[in-house]
Amino acid sequence: MAEVITTGTELLIGKVVNTNATWIARKLVELGMIVRRITSVPDDLNEISSCVKEAINRGARVVIVTGGLGPSKDDMTARALANALGQNYVLNREALKMVSQRLELRGLTLTDNRIKMAYMPERATPLPNPVGVAPGILMREGDILIIALPGVPSEMKAIFEKHVLPILERLATKSLVEGSLVVRGIPESDIASLVESLDINEGCEVYVKTRVFRGGVEIYMSSFKQNCYEVIRNALMKVKKAVVEMGGVIINDINVKRSRN
Amino acid sequence: MAEVITTGTELLIGKVVNTNATWIARKLVELGMIVRRITSVPDDLNEISSCVKEAINRGARVVIVTGGLGPSKDDMTARALANALGQNYVLNREALKMVSQRLELRGLTLTDNRIKMAYMPERATPLPNPVGVAPGILMREGDILIIALPGVPSEMKAIFEKHVLPILERLATKSLVEGSLVVRGIPESDIASLVESLDINEGCEVYVKTRVFRGGVEIYMSSFKQNCYEVIRNALMKVKKAVVEMGGVIINDINVKRSRN
Repeated sequence: MAEVITTGTELLIGKVVNTNATWIARKLVELGMIVRRITSVPDDLNEISSCVKEAINRGARVVIVTGGLGPSKDDMTARALANALGQNYVLNREALKMVSQRLELRGLTLTDNRIKMAYMPERATPLPNPVGVAPGILMREGDILIIALPGVPSEMKAIFEKHVLPILERLATKSLVEGSLVVRGIPESDIASLVESLDINEGCEVYVKTRVFRGGVEIYMSSFKQNCYEVIRNALMKVKKAVVEMGGVIINDINVKRSRN
Repeated sequence: MAEVITTGTELLIGKVVNTNATWIARKLVELGMIVRRITSVPDDLNEISSCVKEAINRGARVVIVTGGLGPSKDDMTARALANALGQNYVLNREALKMVSQRLELRGLTLTDNRIKMAYMPERATPLPNPVGVAPGILMREGDILIIALPGVPSEMKAIFEKHVLPILERLATKSLVEGSLVVRGIPESDIASLVESLDINEGCEVYVKTRVFRGGVEIYMSSFKQNCYEVIRNALMKVKKAVVEMGGVIINDINVKRSRN
């Protein structure tokens, strides 16, 4: 079970849409992980720290935190992690090397503000940032993995793809099978009744969701069980047959895929 | 202090970007409210219910919940609210009238699935949905306001604008003054140092944030104190003067505005 914590007052004042959370959740789900909560908190030491502790107490085994690793005074995620885990907040030599190298590439010098990006909880491992300056943070506490990434989407994604994904892939035991169908001309409530009347689980624990989408209704099904590809395909075919009989028009046809092999 | 809770497994599986949370947070902030947390939880009765209780326990006086008011089995926000507040979950006559009227307009009949949209906690007041079928839910518990809105953005926004905003406006005692400036050619860390060196508060409790934005750095300032318009404008002018002297190029000029009068 995983949780995502996105930090940054810009999210709480409605200035920035939280695309980071969606991107990360999608990556985790593709690895067969269940994301149980996504929380956004402002740049506040206690809020970030409590939020990390709460996620751990709720049983999260993977906690991904974004934002608050930059050079400014209100970037305080590294210190919040140290507080949450009862560790000292110290200068990490390896992180300092990463920061210096990235600054050098840009012809910049190491100021106090920038040295701050190399401070981390004492048991943290820094993750190189291939795009920006601030390293990511990796912590293993027992069987819990806590990862902090910058809030700038390009930096977050680059560190995730290069350094986090390989670690999570080793933990992943499942993958995602998902499929959908979009119909126009039938109210969502009728489609919901129809879908609920089908007995599609067959041991596949299929997640089914209908929602209003592009002027029609999307029927979405997914399962973390690899051998359920056919079950989902057949269920969607049954839905398709029924909605066409009810006069519905298929606007996006059945599309079932696996997240990985 | 306000909190926003967005429900829906589609958010947790990274299928849908949470634009509702951003939109609502912006509206609350424009009314001078501080949003301390945004939480996304899946379509799970206990998760939604706990999340509402946690927000209340953290001291939220306004809790806005979106999603889970529709006709399908996994729409369970109304029941979760009843559980969270220790109320019975009952058929609301007024809500049933609203549902019937909206269905009639669409030439639809009242099925069990659709009657479900009129079930609410016993002390709830339904809010008419000018766009879809499911009514919103308004609850006043002591000095706490709890509002649930559909997850479909057009329905959420319509109910918010028409029925929620007038209520919140009566509660609102503040407004937002905000301004920003975007500069290219100077690293964020230098701008952060510069901004931190300015003494701009003058009793205005100015929130200042720098962030990488459109190939430059945005300097954003805001305050909930109405008389701080000039303070923010002057501070941004000082920043502008300094960054231009440092060789920066202004790509978005100073723009200060009030959210309401």
